[in-house]
Amino acid sequence: MNAQPESDSLQSFLAQQVRIIDRVLSHWVPDETVDPSSIHRAMRYSLFAGGKRIRPILAIAAAQAIGRQAAGVEHAAIALELVHTYSLIHDDLPALDNDDLRRGRPTCHKVFGDALAILAGDALLTLGFEVLSRLPDLAPERKIRLVEELSRAGGTVGGMIGGQVNDIEGERKKPTPLLLDSIHRAKTGALLRASSRMGAIYAGASEEELAALSLYGEHAGLAFQIIDDVLDVEESSEALGKTAGKDEAQQKITFPAVYGLERSREMAEAERLAAHQALRDFDSSADRLRQIADFIVQRKA
Amino acid sequence: MNAQPESDSLQSFLAQQVRIIDRVLSHWVPDETVDPSSIHRAMRYSLFAGGKRIRPILAIAAAQAIGRQAAGVEHAAIALELVHTYSLIHDDLPALDNDDLRRGRPTCHKVFGDALAILAGDALLTLGFEVLSRLPDLAPERKIRLVEELSRAGGTVGGMIGGQVNDIEGERKKPTPLLLDSIHRAKTGALLRASSRMGAIYAGASEEELAALSLYGEHAGLAFQIIDDVLDVEESSEALGKTAGKDEAQQKITFPAVYGLERSREMAEAERLAAHQALRDFDSSADRLRQIADFIVQRKA
Repeated sequence: MNAQPESDSLQSFLAQQVRIIDRVLSHWVPDETVDPSSIHRAMRYSLFAGGKRIRPILAIAAAQAIGRQAAGVEHAAIALELVHTYSLIHDDLPALDNDDLRRGRPTCHKVFGDALAILAGDALLTLGFEVLSRLPDLAPERKIRLVEELSRAGGTVGGMIGGQVNDIEGERKKPTPLLLDSIHRAKTGALLRASSRMGAIYAGASEEELAALSLYGEHAGLAFQIIDDVLDVEESSEALGKTAGKDEAQQKITFPAVYGLERSREMAEAERLAAHQALRDFDSSADRLRQIADFIVQRKA
Repeated sequence: MNAQPESDSLQSFLAQQVRIIDRVLSHWVPDETVDPSSIHRAMRYSLFAGGKRIRPILAIAAAQAIGRQAAGVEHAAIALELVHTYSLIHDDLPALDNDDLRRGRPTCHKVFGDALAILAGDALLTLGFEVLSRLPDLAPERKIRLVEELSRAGGTVGGMIGGQVNDIEGERKKPTPLLLDSIHRAKTGALLRASSRMGAIYAGASEEELAALSLYGEHAGLAFQIIDDVLDVEESSEALGKTAGKDEAQQKITFPAVYGLERSREMAEAERLAAHQALRDFDSSADRLRQIADFIVQRKA
């Protein structure tokens, strides 16, 4: 992790982190010279499609906020992107959300076929855990805690898969605040929360620090999801790089569907403030996390 | 792990291990009282369908062969069954092998639909790593080595997913010994080899012991796959609990397709002897592994 001078703008910080993350991803994910070339091509197609890398960036910024022993955190951070990308590939499949467009390009199964897309997703998930098991220069105790965090956040009980199941099954249900909360807390919230937690664990956070960054991750994550839902209504497919208006077409349970656009934006703002509040005992080392919380609410895509 | 008196027959040993493994699986896999109930039902449907549990049994017997500190190895062993079962669910999907019958029952997607089958597979894979991260009473160094073993064996480079890709893409290719070897060494060989290695690592094997059990796992695993291919030709769907004759219908690259049935049986016998040879420096503590190698070649389903 390259520490940044305070004066750097968030935009240049984000751009630099994306470059670092892409380089580290490229280090871990075999290219098409490695057999079987087709699956490595499919994995890389979806990985290097211009994602915002918000999860690894949260992990890196959380480690920075702790400040101790954070060298190499970008290796742990990319495990989050591998798991996130697997979930996108599988969610886009015809059997699930049946989406043709993702990050501005045809989805993985549209290019490589359903079989290879399923296997590419499986491979990215598996590789996420392999990377954590092979992190250079980290105590085994911390590595295994990272495996536990990632597996729980990606799992069925309060985790990403559980949220996805509730989301699919929710398409036939009445959109209520309670159902909405349970879906998003798990579907996207768990992995975003795990992102800041994993950065903190990597850097040797105390229990108090971990609890604070966990809370930060929950609020910043919820803000992220609310704005995602809002942008799905407000923006074009071109601006989003994925099919816009899809949520309403599929009768998804979203924040705008339950609360309307204006109230949703107010809720995102409340989450942003709660994320800042969670960081109250941190000094300027947590400024990147504060800026990221602001960015999450202000972004246009 | 309950140590068995030498005089016990292999059949009663296997039956007892299946009971232990099923109990441990049931401990780790949420039931349908846990939200979302549908996915937990789908996971358990495929897990508790009368599998032979050969992978966890190999792990338990390998730990027994090492003899030290093997209490609790059945918890690590079930991670192999979780990963194996995920691979079956995904392989059976219409986009892949499109199989309707598995372990004598309709496949997961036939009962729960493609979406839930994809997610149930994802969840079993994720849970495999969660279990390893949460093993009771094992040093973190060993836990993280188990995560590395399982993730590599399940991955794309020489691992299970890589073998599955080569298998699918091989359907359009000429069946050669070289292609056959590369497919099976990865598709089923890697996880079977990892089974004996993980048991050995759990029990604190020396490097020499690990190398020997690794070799054992390779040979026993190859024997297992050869016999699997032979039984697909020789036995009925009813006896196998899955669609028989499927390999030939799909023009899969199998041992009988390349070598014929008689030569295939001879090759399995050679692998059985090589598995025994790998255990030459072990005393009677490795007798279960020896019996399992014999059983693999003699089985009828």
